[in-house]
Amino acid sequence: MLYSVNMNRLEKQIDFIIEIDGLKKIIRKNYLSDCARLENSAEHSWYFAIAAMIMAEHGPPGLDINKVIMMALIHDIVEIDAGDLLVFDEDGKPEQKEKENQAAERLFGILPEDQSVLYRSLWQEFEESISHEARYAKALDRFSAFILNYSTDGKAWREHNVTASMIREKISDMRSMVPMLWEYCSRKLDELVERKLLSP
Amino acid sequence: MLYSVNMNRLEKQIDFIIEIDGLKKIIRKNYLSDCARLENSAEHSWYFAIAAMIMAEHGPPGLDINKVIMMALIHDIVEIDAGDLLVFDEDGKPEQKEKENQAAERLFGILPEDQSVLYRSLWQEFEESISHEARYAKALDRFSAFILNYSTDGKAWREHNVTASMIREKISDMRSMVPMLWEYCSRKLDELVERKLLSP
Repeated sequence: MLYSVNMNRLEKQIDFIIEIDGLKKIIRKNYLSDCARLENSAEHSWYFAIAAMIMAEHGPPGLDINKVIMMALIHDIVEIDAGDLLVFDEDGKPEQKEKENQAAERLFGILPEDQSVLYRSLWQEFEESISHEARYAKALDRFSAFILNYSTDGKAWREHNVTASMIREKISDMRSMVPMLWEYCSRKLDELVERKLLSP
Repeated sequence: MLYSVNMNRLEKQIDFIIEIDGLKKIIRKNYLSDCARLENSAEHSWYFAIAAMIMAEHGPPGLDINKVIMMALIHDIVEIDAGDLLVFDEDGKPEQKEKENQAAERLFGILPEDQSVLYRSLWQEFEESISHEARYAKALDRFSAFILNYSTDGKAWREHNVTASMIREKISDMRSMVPMLWEYCSRKLDELVERKLLSP
């Protein structure tokens, strides 16, 4: 009896793992650092998780970095159903929010009930920036895209008519959560503006 | 003074993050679950980390899952220099081992000294399977490839003349570390053999 209950749990977990393979097919708006191709959301999730881990010392005191890493691993899973929206697309936000909520229900719902609740609430915490961990995670999510955009001299930013001040607003969580990273990014934005690669 | 020391650390960490973007260009031998293309090592690292997290309850008692997740995130970074070797290629192993050691020195060496030591030793622990965490991680590394190979009816296995008994040997860490997963995989192998999609 116990055995079959456990095997039933395991099979739900495996169904989830097979399903989320789909995140590797979701194409983002930014390029890899050598411009060879656009990044996908699965490899971005890895990149964000590892950047958050490496940079943890610069975050707020008492940060639970393990929780941040878990957030990074699951934060984009909803895109399997909802797709990726350009972070600067304000008009598309309300519809995207609705799609992502439905996606969270379907995708995390594949897991056993307790895990479904756990990961859905972790995703919600990240989405709504309701903890230090979520705000640090947001800052590192932005940074992991920022550094690729900077490495390509802002190619994707120019393609989407993004300006330095729009970027400053989007990375504002860095200012309070990871001030040193904010300063680093600010300087890099000034540099791109000076080199006429980015509009102020 | 303290400020410039910290900015110096941050810049080394950012150099490392830019460098490891290269893992997204390392192509593995297995396909995505829909056969659309081969998987790359960065998205595989994400997949392995999340599978390890979801399955932790089936692992050995007292398992430090946060350590396992960190191992998963960094385990393949050496492939940026050393490339990916088919897990069944026994002849290529000694040369690959040497290449990976050099890669670990160069790549983790980009980080500040303390982090370089930390992550290199975590990678070594994984490579040499010298803890429960490392052996559980090995089992889940194999599983995250197994489930894609199974989902594609063993396409990549057939392409590389891999048999069910070769696979059973490679996933043997599952038997002691995650017995329920071993049993699941064993049954799936029997099924593929029965359907003549895999040699015994």
